[in-house]
Amino acid sequence: MEMNKIEVCVSPALYPYYENPDAIVVVTDVLRASSAIVTAFMNGVERIIPVGTLEEAKAYKEKGFMVAAERDGLVRDFADFGNSPYNFTPERVAGKQIVYSTTNGTNAIHLASSGSQVLIGAYLNLSALAKYIRKEQKDLLILCAGWKNKFNLEDTLFAGALAQLVLEDDQYQSICDATLGSIDLYNAAKDDMMGYITKVAQNGRLKKNNLDDVIGYCHEIDLTELIPVLNEDHLFVL
Amino acid sequence: MEMNKIEVCVSPALYPYYENPDAIVVVTDVLRASSAIVTAFMNGVERIIPVGTLEEAKAYKEKGFMVAAERDGLVRDFADFGNSPYNFTPERVAGKQIVYSTTNGTNAIHLASSGSQVLIGAYLNLSALAKYIRKEQKDLLILCAGWKNKFNLEDTLFAGALAQLVLEDDQYQSICDATLGSIDLYNAAKDDMMGYITKVAQNGRLKKNNLDDVIGYCHEIDLTELIPVLNEDHLFVL
Repeated sequence: MEMNKIEVCVSPALYPYYENPDAIVVVTDVLRASSAIVTAFMNGVERIIPVGTLEEAKAYKEKGFMVAAERDGLVRDFADFGNSPYNFTPERVAGKQIVYSTTNGTNAIHLASSGSQVLIGAYLNLSALAKYIRKEQKDLLILCAGWKNKFNLEDTLFAGALAQLVLEDDQYQSICDATLGSIDLYNAAKDDMMGYITKVAQNGRLKKNNLDDVIGYCHEIDLTELIPVLNEDHLFVL
Repeated sequence: MEMNKIEVCVSPALYPYYENPDAIVVVTDVLRASSAIVTAFMNGVERIIPVGTLEEAKAYKEKGFMVAAERDGLVRDFADFGNSPYNFTPERVAGKQIVYSTTNGTNAIHLASSGSQVLIGAYLNLSALAKYIRKEQKDLLILCAGWKNKFNLEDTLFAGALAQLVLEDDQYQSICDATLGSIDLYNAAKDDMMGYITKVAQNGRLKKNNLDDVIGYCHEIDLTELIPVLNEDHLFVL
């Protein structure tokens, strides 16, 4: 039997070289979009409609939708709120549909739709993801949202954490240097993750805007078993 | 005084996001193009003309040039030899001009020409590179040739080794997660580099074609102080 393959794509700009129509694609943007999306579902949101551009987000707002939209960490003036997981409270989101646009995360979700299934991954739902993927027995491609198409560490570390868990299933193999590298980086960082994360660029960006309160929360492991999945234009939970 | 910046670009496809006209760009393709180029200069080659396409290489051959050309590790039939550093012997190359085209390395050199200066980097000339860059006091961008635009480990490890040496100068700072990640990977690998390298994808590719004899040589540090530099269409040594 042919083995299932795991690959890690460290930037959306590299996606064309990793694209695999047979793969489950896990999109991750740990600080903060994918952690916020998982949190929204934990708090009862019904659907999230990810949109790439602010123009689309604004058009939805004018039609009466609740909109979360940010660029470079800052809430856009027309939006109801921004990108912090703490914004997606049960009071605000339970039973609602939310339109969501972020600097890196939502475009990565749209790219990933060429895969066989798109899941949203964060530390918050790490083990549930690994369990689901191993049950499906398909190739796995982890797509890091990165930062404006540059490599970022926080997403790469998450990719390493997830790849390592899935590789415990001996039907999976890594065919990819980025998978090996991300696993090694995760293992170097994991015993003092908060110490490690202080040196990443996104930590500095969030701190500058007083948005770093969520960094610890975004690295909490297995708070939920919910897995957001893309169904055409919206995310819902399995 | 403003600090000099170090960035690492892990794939030629990400170069547009890292491009910096003020930076010295070090192009590396450890297995094997940049190691072969450095070796050719150690063995007395006068000039190397890097060309992107096999058509260009063939046209030079028809004009009487000596041509080294390979794709996926294999010598092309019209070429005099391929991509192994062991091909570039003093008997063959001393005093000569050589035209050179490889799978990943030569395209990366052409991209890098938008920087202020293009240098060819390998473990073979590691300390000389760091010394030269620190003398110049300019930004540094390390461009990994990668593998068909995918991330590869051997070039990323080299980037970490070079970045770490240059950062010993306190006028340099890393502004880049890829720099931090590559330094951490290099430090995780360096005490058993040959053990580490056995797991990278390029090791498997070279082994399959019996081309892995050069892997140890390509990781030898500081065999030379020569630094190949791009001058318009050709490489020479400083």
